[in-house]
Amino acid sequence: MQLPESVTLVEVGPRDGLQNEARTIPLAAKLQLLDDLAAAGHRVIEAGSFVNPKWVPQMADSEAVFAGLQRRPGVRYTALTPNLQGFERALAAGADEVAIFAAASEAFSQKNINCSIAESLQRFEQVMAAAGERGVPVRGYVSCVLGCPYEGEVAPAAVAAVTAELLAMGCYEVSLGDTIGTGTAGSMARLLETLLAQFTPQQLAVHCHDTYGQALANILVALQHGIATVDTSVAGLGGCPYARGASGNVATEDVVYMLDGLGIASGLDLAALAAAGNRICATLGRPNGARTARALDARSA
Amino acid sequence: MQLPESVTLVEVGPRDGLQNEARTIPLAAKLQLLDDLAAAGHRVIEAGSFVNPKWVPQMADSEAVFAGLQRRPGVRYTALTPNLQGFERALAAGADEVAIFAAASEAFSQKNINCSIAESLQRFEQVMAAAGERGVPVRGYVSCVLGCPYEGEVAPAAVAAVTAELLAMGCYEVSLGDTIGTGTAGSMARLLETLLAQFTPQQLAVHCHDTYGQALANILVALQHGIATVDTSVAGLGGCPYARGASGNVATEDVVYMLDGLGIASGLDLAALAAAGNRICATLGRPNGARTARALDARSA
Repeated sequence: MQLPESVTLVEVGPRDGLQNEARTIPLAAKLQLLDDLAAAGHRVIEAGSFVNPKWVPQMADSEAVFAGLQRRPGVRYTALTPNLQGFERALAAGADEVAIFAAASEAFSQKNINCSIAESLQRFEQVMAAAGERGVPVRGYVSCVLGCPYEGEVAPAAVAAVTAELLAMGCYEVSLGDTIGTGTAGSMARLLETLLAQFTPQQLAVHCHDTYGQALANILVALQHGIATVDTSVAGLGGCPYARGASGNVATEDVVYMLDGLGIASGLDLAALAAAGNRICATLGRPNGARTARALDARSA
Repeated sequence: MQLPESVTLVEVGPRDGLQNEARTIPLAAKLQLLDDLAAAGHRVIEAGSFVNPKWVPQMADSEAVFAGLQRRPGVRYTALTPNLQGFERALAAGADEVAIFAAASEAFSQKNINCSIAESLQRFEQVMAAAGERGVPVRGYVSCVLGCPYEGEVAPAAVAAVTAELLAMGCYEVSLGDTIGTGTAGSMARLLETLLAQFTPQQLAVHCHDTYGQALANILVALQHGIATVDTSVAGLGGCPYARGASGNVATEDVVYMLDGLGIASGLDLAALAAAGNRICATLGRPNGARTARALDARSA
């Protein structure tokens, strides 16, 4: 196995996680979570999103989150921005970096954001121009890279096309999202073989959901292909793991446990991370979705 | 990735799974489960164990299980046997194959079965002799291959030593058990590199627990090393996935989903398997521990 020596984890729990939780949580709990995550060693944390609060009410307080967070040196606090207005709000709030997004599936793009993939990219041109002027790094997300709820299989070539567009527009990195978690070690390997014929591993990140229990195996395949940036969500926030239709993000704790075992540096402290996850789960009144966190709890009980 | 073209799954749910469930289940439900598993395509099913019912009350009805099961052609129904008496009971009941067991950790052997590893192997000599005379295939289990609750790390050389003994005694295959689920892709790779210097992939199987969420990634590593026999448990039976100290077996459904995605033949029908898991979970009054089964349910809901 040819593996990276170190991996950057992008903690998406406070945004992609909490926005999908049924319960809206108090600002103080969000600020505590952000501080806990930075204290545990995270260096990139997606802290909020500046989308219309009508669509994502859990993120309506993102201004207050950025205003209130205890900045720790060396930590990048990032935000998702759907358009120029959101970008301006994110910058005014103090986001260090922003993220834009597109789908690899036309049907998903139409149903999710009501426009074609090409139109969605066009809408981000203003954001890219403004970010370029101000020197703000922009990350790109591509959703449905290993399957679409409407189209089923998604061709690696379709993912490559939208990835190429995002990089050409100026994104420094594209995060490949297995939005519905249907990917496997096989489809992840095929996707990366296509993409790595065009792009470098440094231009790519993976964002796996554990809906079918495949996330860790898929991430291992990504590591074996040299990918060294992985999106994770503390406690598996984002879809209750015990509900029907659960579709949580992969738990940061489970990924860190694997990386530790592989001797790959992540800079994360597993115990501190598990404590952070337990604290937010107590606030949310939900069980911890990280198996590693539950196992560590059981061991110390 | 160099992967096997086909994989044999050894279904351990009815034995290793149910014996670790808090609730004892009715004979009729066990027989239904066995029939469902064979109908779903399993060709090797561990149906019971002939240990002292004082220690494992859930398996006290193994004679009745073997007497009552609807045999399907081509399916091997196997049993765990701790000694000659258990072996004779298993044969009388109609087991097609038996399994014996030893630990890779001295501390675990002492605490679990109250004797040294060497003594435990010696006790099985009578079983091996009797099995040899009757032409009964014997499988060996080694526990704690990637970690011990008392000793912590277990050296690959210690696993190699007990594996060598079991093969020398006449076991046709040794199943490597990550009993407490602490193994990672890294420790699994190191273990297999040691073992495959001495043994062929055909002599080895892996038996992973998902305590730390690592099972599927660890199994992927085993497949990449040419291992083509994997123990799995339908619905992740064996330790409630939602309880403190959960330490369930890897769920058959999640493994089959991965194998299907890798294009590796297993002969299993995922939908039938998920239905079998849902049925036994309904009987046990527990949620289905297979993420794939939950995702399929949500999709069809």
